[in-house]
Amino acid sequence: MRNDTKGIIFVGDGMGGRPMPQLDGMTTVEAQETPALDRVAREGACGLMDPIARGMGAGSDTAHMAILGYDPWEHYKGRGPFEAKGVGLDVRVGDVAFRCNFATVDGRRVVDRRADRIKHGTDALAEAISEQIEEIEGVQIVFAASVEHRAALVLRGEGLWHEITDVDPHDEGKDYLDSHPEEGAQDLEGAEKAAGIVNEFVRQVRPILEDHEVNVERRREGKKPANIVLPRGAGTAVDLTPFEQRYGMRGAMIVEVDLVRGLGDYLDMDVIRVEGATGGHDTDEMAIAEAVLDALDEHDFVLANIKCPDLSGHDGLAREKMAAIAKVDRAVGHIMDHIACTPTTLMLTADHCTPCSVRNHSGDAVPVAFCGFGVRPDDVESYGERSCAKGIMGRMVGMEVMDIMRNMMDRGEKFGA
Amino acid sequence: MRNDTKGIIFVGDGMGGRPMPQLDGMTTVEAQETPALDRVAREGACGLMDPIARGMGAGSDTAHMAILGYDPWEHYKGRGPFEAKGVGLDVRVGDVAFRCNFATVDGRRVVDRRADRIKHGTDALAEAISEQIEEIEGVQIVFAASVEHRAALVLRGEGLWHEITDVDPHDEGKDYLDSHPEEGAQDLEGAEKAAGIVNEFVRQVRPILEDHEVNVERRREGKKPANIVLPRGAGTAVDLTPFEQRYGMRGAMIVEVDLVRGLGDYLDMDVIRVEGATGGHDTDEMAIAEAVLDALDEHDFVLANIKCPDLSGHDGLAREKMAAIAKVDRAVGHIMDHIACTPTTLMLTADHCTPCSVRNHSGDAVPVAFCGFGVRPDDVESYGERSCAKGIMGRMVGMEVMDIMRNMMDRGEKFGA
Repeated sequence: MRNDTKGIIFVGDGMGGRPMPQLDGMTTVEAQETPALDRVAREGACGLMDPIARGMGAGSDTAHMAILGYDPWEHYKGRGPFEAKGVGLDVRVGDVAFRCNFATVDGRRVVDRRADRIKHGTDALAEAISEQIEEIEGVQIVFAASVEHRAALVLRGEGLWHEITDVDPHDEGKDYLDSHPEEGAQDLEGAEKAAGIVNEFVRQVRPILEDHEVNVERRREGKKPANIVLPRGAGTAVDLTPFEQRYGMRGAMIVEVDLVRGLGDYLDMDVIRVEGATGGHDTDEMAIAEAVLDALDEHDFVLANIKCPDLSGHDGLAREKMAAIAKVDRAVGHIMDHIACTPTTLMLTADHCTPCSVRNHSGDAVPVAFCGFGVRPDDVESYGERSCAKGIMGRMVGMEVMDIMRNMMDRGEKFGA
Repeated sequence: MRNDTKGIIFVGDGMGGRPMPQLDGMTTVEAQETPALDRVAREGACGLMDPIARGMGAGSDTAHMAILGYDPWEHYKGRGPFEAKGVGLDVRVGDVAFRCNFATVDGRRVVDRRADRIKHGTDALAEAISEQIEEIEGVQIVFAASVEHRAALVLRGEGLWHEITDVDPHDEGKDYLDSHPEEGAQDLEGAEKAAGIVNEFVRQVRPILEDHEVNVERRREGKKPANIVLPRGAGTAVDLTPFEQRYGMRGAMIVEVDLVRGLGDYLDMDVIRVEGATGGHDTDEMAIAEAVLDALDEHDFVLANIKCPDLSGHDGLAREKMAAIAKVDRAVGHIMDHIACTPTTLMLTADHCTPCSVRNHSGDAVPVAFCGFGVRPDDVESYGERSCAKGIMGRMVGMEVMDIMRNMMDRGEKFGA
């Protein structure tokens, strides 16, 4: 077993789709010229991956969990803990955590879910909340602001459970909601307790925010006040073995999605921020590629993700998605040009398909290609949904990826004598 | 369902690898001319097999267990019981068993792990040990010599567990070790008990051997004395349903690896020894092939294994491995030439890959080919890692093999009405 090999998993977020009539029956990945992605396929070994299971649509969180070898069926209990961790909150096993928006309400009606996309002052608002609401019914309350209107909330106490509905109505013009246990919640009593506390939290937050000087100032400037916090996406924090402890590799994560970054924080990976990585179509893909190469100096393993193909998929814009895929291609090309001399294994994949025709994540398999150290190249010539299906790697699920990568990197485990 | 069909699984040990620059990017299996293996592929149906799971390196013991349909995740609790069974010791469920070496020590320092490769006298030494150490702290001690320096030890008593470290330091010049429970042992108390007894066994063995007439004579002849026994590879004996009882087929095993032979003994298969089957590069592959054909007279099912490809893989010698693969090819060719008239299904496989570049077992998939009775031939023309990947059998795991074989042999089970 070696300890000098390097591994990269490069994820084009949502970079997989379905054939489109306007692309002559090709998918966006197939229609876009992708010399670097094709090079990975041509020099490497290809296959298809079901991130979770056949036909099962995956979230970015569950897909990345599975790809990193943490079984989402067993370990995923809502996104909240990853969101809270990504905001820098301390999250402990058993906590119930939420992502939140600072929003504007008139009575119970949500006027603006993002409080005029508030940019400044949320730290002061959060501080006021934290000072005045330390606990509710014996449950500790931890609250912090993130960038813009975003924030996170953690409930810490005995017997809490996350299967509860959102306070956030997700639409403007609607009343905000009382949280209540989801139908079929596994721990009904714990869910009732968590719902009661989050409702009480929202009730107590209102007067604190309403007359806070930040909002007084906003009103004076003609801006909508951030006069409520709307929690959503509850999750119970679970115990995940840190990445390095699990695999004996120092791991870095260079991703554009807060939620996935939160997973990286959760796994004690080094979550590296890249200047110019915006998470949008204007992202600096070359800066991301450079950051990946830099990270390999100090790390054994890097997971990278470029977000924009997913955005266009959600928007249903094929040409824009092709441009986003071209960005992924340029980043991968830069990496490929600079890793040739070290024993490095690279996996190219998507975390899920986001077909423009679906405008959401689908349960279609994603194309994968492995190249570099320890790979048995096949005769696939291009990276795409149909071409990769003919590769030697066949069909895999996300949960198999880390074992495959570690084997190629000669860092795998042997079972038996 | 028929009962007149025959099945053969022919295993080239470690006969799978990775592309090598010095072989123009081919693996040793691809580079070596193998007319018989190619014939199996051409006349049959091909695929790839992960002996245990994707990316997971397999031992010869766990791989053969899985191929024979005994789930190693559930049933594998160390190699010791197979080793002891292979030496002819009675092994019962719950026993903790070890393979052992007769060795030479000076004080605690191991001078020679094989006691000058002692050839004669170990039966007498073992007898002396057995007479003088019948039990330790209520645990029965069973000890027997095997060929040369090899021996086996069985501890029989309540509440023993195998997750303990070796007494054998595995290197000469080092002190032999006290056994202790492994970190995270599932049954710590049982492991502590087993470690304590094996340490006491080694302590009591010393004076018995030191002045034994065999060693007095060896010293007189200038040879190193076999003055200690070094146990290693502890395993707890589990309950495995005998092969014939499980499958309704009389099974034979013709293999060159003691460990796998021990598994055959454990499953009450007929373990057939072949003169000239040395387990080395000088093995008589034609004698093995003849023995397989002979065994088919009295048996429904034969598992055969030729060891030498694995040896060259561990040594990193590609040309030698190709010569070893040529031996497998000749044996398979002889079998193919003589089974045509009977309804026989043959599966050709490796138990795991041992790439010359890795010099150890890897978690790469192995090529498999089925031919003969009940097979739906595909268009694969040669036996190899990349060619077989295109076969109709697709990707399978070791645990699926016996169901596949029994189906082809019309001896399968039907689930439902």
